[in-house]
Amino acid sequence: MSNLKRIAVLTSGGDAPGMNACIRAILLTAAACNIEVIGFKHGFNGLLEQEYQTLHPQHVDNIIQRGGTILKSARCPALEQADGPARAAASLKELNIDALIVIGGDGSFRGTMAISKHYDGQLIGVPGTIDNDVDGTDHTIGFATAIDTALDAIDKIRDTADAFERIFLVELMGRHSGYISLAAGIAGGAEQIICPEFGPLSPDNLRAIIKPIQHAQLLKGKSSYLIVVAEHSYPGGATALAEALTKAIGIECRACILGHIQRGGSPVGADRILATKLGAYAVEQLLQGATLMMAGEVNGETCLYPLEKTGDGTKQIDPFLVRWQQQIGSY
Amino acid sequence: MSNLKRIAVLTSGGDAPGMNACIRAILLTAAACNIEVIGFKHGFNGLLEQEYQTLHPQHVDNIIQRGGTILKSARCPALEQADGPARAAASLKELNIDALIVIGGDGSFRGTMAISKHYDGQLIGVPGTIDNDVDGTDHTIGFATAIDTALDAIDKIRDTADAFERIFLVELMGRHSGYISLAAGIAGGAEQIICPEFGPLSPDNLRAIIKPIQHAQLLKGKSSYLIVVAEHSYPGGATALAEALTKAIGIECRACILGHIQRGGSPVGADRILATKLGAYAVEQLLQGATLMMAGEVNGETCLYPLEKTGDGTKQIDPFLVRWQQQIGSY
Amino acid sequence: MSNLKRIAVLTSGGDAPGMNACIRAILLTAAACNIEVIGFKHGFNGLLEQEYQTLHPQHVDNIIQRGGTILKSARCPALEQADGPARAAASLKELNIDALIVIGGDGSFRGTMAISKHYDGQLIGVPGTIDNDVDGTDHTIGFATAIDTALDAIDKIRDTADAFERIFLVELMGRHSGYISLAAGIAGGAEQIICPEFGPLSPDNLRAIIKPIQHAQLLKGKSSYLIVVAEHSYPGGATALAEALTKAIGIECRACILGHIQRGGSPVGADRILATKLGAYAVEQLLQGATLMMAGEVNGETCLYPLEKTGDGTKQIDPFLVRWQQQIGSY
Amino acid sequence: MSNLKRIAVLTSGGDAPGMNACIRAILLTAAACNIEVIGFKHGFNGLLEQEYQTLHPQHVDNIIQRGGTILKSARCPALEQADGPARAAASLKELNIDALIVIGGDGSFRGTMAISKHYDGQLIGVPGTIDNDVDGTDHTIGFATAIDTALDAIDKIRDTADAFERIFLVELMGRHSGYISLAAGIAGGAEQIICPEFGPLSPDNLRAIIKPIQHAQLLKGKSSYLIVVAEHSYPGGATALAEALTKAIGIECRACILGHIQRGGSPVGADRILATKLGAYAVEQLLQGATLMMAGEVNGETCLYPLEKTGDGTKQIDPFLVRWQQQIGSY
Repeated sequence: MSNLKRIAVLTSGGDAPGMNACIRAILLTAAACNIEVIGFKHGFNGLLEQEYQTLHPQHVDNIIQRGGTILKSARCPALEQADGPARAAASLKELNIDALIVIGGDGSFRGTMAISKHYDGQLIGVPGTIDNDVDGTDHTIGFATAIDTALDAIDKIRDTADAFERIFLVELMGRHSGYISLAAGIAGGAEQIICPEFGPLSPDNLRAIIKPIQHAQLLKGKSSYLIVVAEHSYPGGATALAEALTKAIGIECRACILGHIQRGGSPVGADRILATKLGAYAVEQLLQGATLMMAGEVNGETCLYPLEKTGDGTKQIDPFLVRWQQQIGSY
Repeated sequence: MSNLKRIAVLTSGGDAPGMNACIRAILLTAAACNIEVIGFKHGFNGLLEQEYQTLHPQHVDNIIQRGGTILKSARCPALEQADGPARAAASLKELNIDALIVIGGDGSFRGTMAISKHYDGQLIGVPGTIDNDVDGTDHTIGFATAIDTALDAIDKIRDTADAFERIFLVELMGRHSGYISLAAGIAGGAEQIICPEFGPLSPDNLRAIIKPIQHAQLLKGKSSYLIVVAEHSYPGGATALAEALTKAIGIECRACILGHIQRGGSPVGADRILATKLGAYAVEQLLQGATLMMAGEVNGETCLYPLEKTGDGTKQIDPFLVRWQQQIGSY
Repeated sequence: MSNLKRIAVLTSGGDAPGMNACIRAILLTAAACNIEVIGFKHGFNGLLEQEYQTLHPQHVDNIIQRGGTILKSARCPALEQADGPARAAASLKELNIDALIVIGGDGSFRGTMAISKHYDGQLIGVPGTIDNDVDGTDHTIGFATAIDTALDAIDKIRDTADAFERIFLVELMGRHSGYISLAAGIAGGAEQIICPEFGPLSPDNLRAIIKPIQHAQLLKGKSSYLIVVAEHSYPGGATALAEALTKAIGIECRACILGHIQRGGSPVGADRILATKLGAYAVEQLLQGATLMMAGEVNGETCLYPLEKTGDGTKQIDPFLVRWQQQIGSY
Repeated sequence: MSNLKRIAVLTSGGDAPGMNACIRAILLTAAACNIEVIGFKHGFNGLLEQEYQTLHPQHVDNIIQRGGTILKSARCPALEQADGPARAAASLKELNIDALIVIGGDGSFRGTMAISKHYDGQLIGVPGTIDNDVDGTDHTIGFATAIDTALDAIDKIRDTADAFERIFLVELMGRHSGYISLAAGIAGGAEQIICPEFGPLSPDNLRAIIKPIQHAQLLKGKSSYLIVVAEHSYPGGATALAEALTKAIGIECRACILGHIQRGGSPVGADRILATKLGAYAVEQLLQGATLMMAGEVNGETCLYPLEKTGDGTKQIDPFLVRWQQQIGSY
C-alpha cells in the first residue's frame, strides 16, 4: 500500500459536465484517508506555473451539480515544448506531490505519459470528455450529459421541423467519433444519422443520403425530416451539407450547429455517479500503488486500463444501434 | 352580439411555443358557446387549398404543453399574389366561416388585412411569435419561452467560458428587434449585449465593443466574457463579429449561433397563460362583434388593438434595462 | 441626493429563486456608485449578531443563475422580542450602515418597519417570495420560477394520470393566496383549481367539486383528471381532500404534495430580470433619499410603494383567468 | 425462424418513461418485417376485453419523447381471477395473435407466465419500470429518467436546505428496492441514504442515523443536511422518520415525499435508447422463435432471460457506491 501524503488533481482539455463531481469525490476520499489534495488551475498550465490551491471539504460543497470545473481548464502548448514534461515533473517534485490525477481526454493522457519519463511519483488518469472517445471505459464523464443536451435541442428542432414539415440537419460534437451523434440521433428519432465511422462522405457521394429522403417523401408526403450529423463528417460541416442537399433535391434543408452548449450544464445523474465512482476509485488505486493507469468503468465495474493505450481506438459505437438505424430508422 | 356558428383558426409564420395552448383555448371557449371551430393546416395555404379539419375537444387534450403547432405553419407566397387575398376570402365564404382567427406575427396580420378587403366576416389576430415585435401587446406568445431557451444555452456556455476563461459571442434570434437578446442577455449576466436598437455596428466601428472588454481584462484579469448578439446586428452575424474581434484584440473569440432551437420546446407557464387568455379573449371579442383587431395584453389586461397598426414599431425595448446594462453590466 | 457610503443587504423569510440575482444587481449598482455593500447572514439574525461580510464584485460572479441565497435566510424570532427592533437598529448604527435593503416577503417588511422606529438611516424592501402575496408589485421575485417548477411537476403527473386515467390532486404552495395555484393550474390545463380565494371548502361542502368530476366522467368516459389545490384550502390539505373525494365518488383519488422543491432551482429569465431591475432600482432610490418604501414593478415600470401597506391584501388573482377556468376549464 | 403475421403489445403496471419509445421500436421493426402490430389498451384489461387498435407508423411518429404510454396502462385484477389467464389466452387466439409483447415489471411478467399455460403463441417481456427491480437486465426502461427527475428535485431542495441550513428528508419511490434512492442520493450528494437493502430501520433503532448527523454538526456547524429515504424503509415513511428525528436530536427535520412525478416526464436519452434496443430486439427474437423470455440488456449487450426468473431478486444495488457512501458520504 502506497504511503501517500499529498496528491494533486487537475482538469485538462475541453471541460465536461461531471468534472466537479469527480474533484469532489477525489477530495472526500482522500480526506477520509488523511491525504492532502492540491488542485492545479488551468490544466497543466497551473502545474507548470505552480498556480494551485489546497482543497478542503468546504471547497467541494455543492459542486456536484455544477457544470464546468472549479479548477478551470485549458489547452497547454507549453507542455508540448521539448522541456515541458521535465519542467512539469520538476514542479511536482518541488511541491512534494506523491501522485497526480489528471481528469481529461486522450490528449491529456498523452501529456501525462510524457511527464512520467521524468517523474517518480504515481500518475493516474480519469476519463473526462463529452466525446466518449477513450478506450478502457464504457463511458467517459460528461458523455451522458452531452447526449441529453443534444437531445433537448433535437426535440426542440423537431417541434419546428414538424410545424413546418421541413428538413433540418443538426450538427453535434464528437471530435472524430460518432458516439454523441449515434446516441442522440437514436434517442431523438432522427431519420438519418451521419458519423465519421460510417465512412467518408463527400459532395460526389450524396446519393446514400438523398435516397432515403426521397423514399420518405414518397411514403409520408410532406413531413419533418431530421438528420443528425457528427462534426467532421463532411467537408464544411452541416452547413455545407445542407446547401448541397438543398441543391440536389430542391427542398430547403437547414443546418443547426449546436456548438459549445454541449459542453456545459448541470451533469445528469449518470455522469455524477460515474464521476464519483472514478474519482473515489482513482484515489483508492493510488493507495494500492497504481500508476500510469486510467480509472475506468467497464460493464458496471471499476477497472484500470493502461494510460498509454487509451487512444488506440479499439472501442466501437454500438453495432446493434448502427444496424437498426440503417435498416429501420428512416421512418 | 355576433351570431357566430362556425369560426376558423390558423397558425402562420414562424412557429412559437404556446400556439397549441392558444388553439386549445379557442376551441374550449368556442365549444362552450356552441360554436363550431375548424382549423386550417399550414397557415394560409390551408385556407387557400381548403385543407382543414373540424376541431373537437379531444383534439386539444394534452396539447397545452406541446411546442410547435398541431395545425402546422408555413409561409404562404400564394397569398401574396395579386389574386391571393380574394381567393382566400372566397374560400372562407364557401366554407361558411363567420370569423377567422389568425395566430401569428405582424407579417401574418398584413395578410389578414389584405383578405379583409374581400371578406364580410370577422377577422381577428392573436400575436404568436418568439420575437415580441408586435405593437399592441406587452408580450407575444412564445417570447417568454424563447428567453428561457436562450438563457439555458447561455448558462451552459457560461460554464465552458468560465472553465476556459474565454470570450464567447452568442447569437440569438429576434428578426430586427432586440427583445430576446436584451432579456436573455440581462438574465444571463452577459457582459455585453448588442441589439439592432443600439444603432448600426460595422467593422469600422468596433471600438465601443472592444473598450469594455479591455477594461474588464484589466479589472478582473483572465475571466469569462459573454457577448449576446441579436441577429442582424452586424454584417455577417456573430461569426464575422467574432473573427473581427479576435483580430482586433488578439484574444480568441468564439461564436455560437443558437438557431432554430429557440422556436421549439414546451412553452413555459407565462406563454401558456398568455396564450390561453388571448385565445379565450379572441373568441369572446368575436362574439362582441370585434373585427380587424388583434387580441393583446397590456399591463395585465386583455385589450384590442387595430390590426393595421401592429407593425408600426411603437413598442420599445425596456429603457431601464438598456440604461442599466450600458452603465453597469460589463462586470 | 443621499450621501450613501455604506449600505447593507439581507435576505429574509422563505428563500426564493432570484434572490441571488437581486443581491448581484445591488452590489453591481452600488459598486458603480462607490458605495460599500455588506451582506448580513441568516436574515435579521445576522444583523442582530453582526454576522456579515463585505461584498465585492467577485462574490456575485456567476450567482445570477443560482437558486437559494448566498446570504442564507432564516426566520428570526429574536427580532420579534420586545427589544429586538431596537437592538437591530443599534447594530446598524454601530456598523455605520447608511441604509438597509431587505429582500423578503411581507413578514420581513413588518420586521423592517419595527426597526424604523429606532433607526435614522434609510430602509427599503425588495419583494422576494414565491407566493406573490405582496401588494405594490405585480410580481414578486421567485414567483415565475415557482410556477414553472410546479408546472413541470404537473406535466409529469399528467403523463401518469393519462396513462392510468386517474384523478390526481396536486397541492401547491402559496401561503394564504392562490397565485401559484391559479397560474400553474391554468398553464397545466388542470380540470379544477382550488384556491383560498374561492371561499371556504369543507367536508360538508364537496358538491361543487364533485359535480364537475362526474360531468367530465359522463362526457369523456374514463380519462385523466387533475385538480390543483392551493395549500390551506381544505382542512388536512390535499391528502384529506383526496380521501374525502375517493369516498364520495368511489373512484380512487391520489394526492401529491409538491412541497419544498417549489422554493429552489435556477431562476427563470423573468425572475432574474425582475430581481435585477428591483435590486438596481432599490439602490438608485436610496440615492434619491427613499426610505420605508418597497421597490416594486407595476405595469412594467419600477415604482415605490409604502412598506407599511405591502400586506394590505389589495392585489387580486387574475379575474379573467378565474372566470374562464370556472366556466370552461373543466374539459 | 418464426412465421409471424400478427403480434400484439401492451403496457402494464406503473407507467415508465420510455414505454412509448419501446412501442415505437416494436412497431417500426415489425413493420419492416411486414408483421402487423396491434396494441391492447389499459394493460391486460384491453386483452381480456379486446379493446385494441392496429398500430401504423404514423401512430408512433413523435412519441419517442413522450412520457406515459399511448396504450395506457392499468393494474388488472381480472387477470388474477381463476379463469383470467385462460380468458386472456382465448382472446389472443380469437384475434389470431402469433405473439404477445408485454412491457412492464415483474408483476406483469407473472401475469404473462400465467397466460402461457393456456396459449400456444410466443410470449416475451420487456422490462419497463422506474424501480429497476427486475433480474436479467442491468437497467429497466424508465429507471434513468426517474433518477434524473428525483435528482432535479433533490438539487432544488438542496437550494432551500442550504439557504436555511436545515435537515431535509426526501422520500423516493422504488417499491422494495433502493436502486433509485442510491443512485439519486449519490448523484445529489446526499449526506445519508436509507434503503430497504440496508436492513430494517425502526423507531428503536435510529442511532445509526443520528450519529452521523451529530458528527456533521460538530464538524461543519450549522449546514444543510439531506437524507434520501427509499419508500418502505421506515414504518410511516419519511414523514414519520422526520418526526422521530426531530424529537431525537432537537433540530427540525422536514420530509418531502416526491411521489408520482417520478413516473412521468420526457424520457432521458439513456431510456429512449434502451427502450429502442429492447423493443427492436424483442421483435427480432420473436422471429427467432423465442418465447417465455424477457428481452434485457446486460453489459451493453442485448440478451434473453427466462421470464419466470425475473423476480428472483438476484440483482444487487452497486456495492461500490454502497461502501463509498457509508464510509465517506456524510460530508
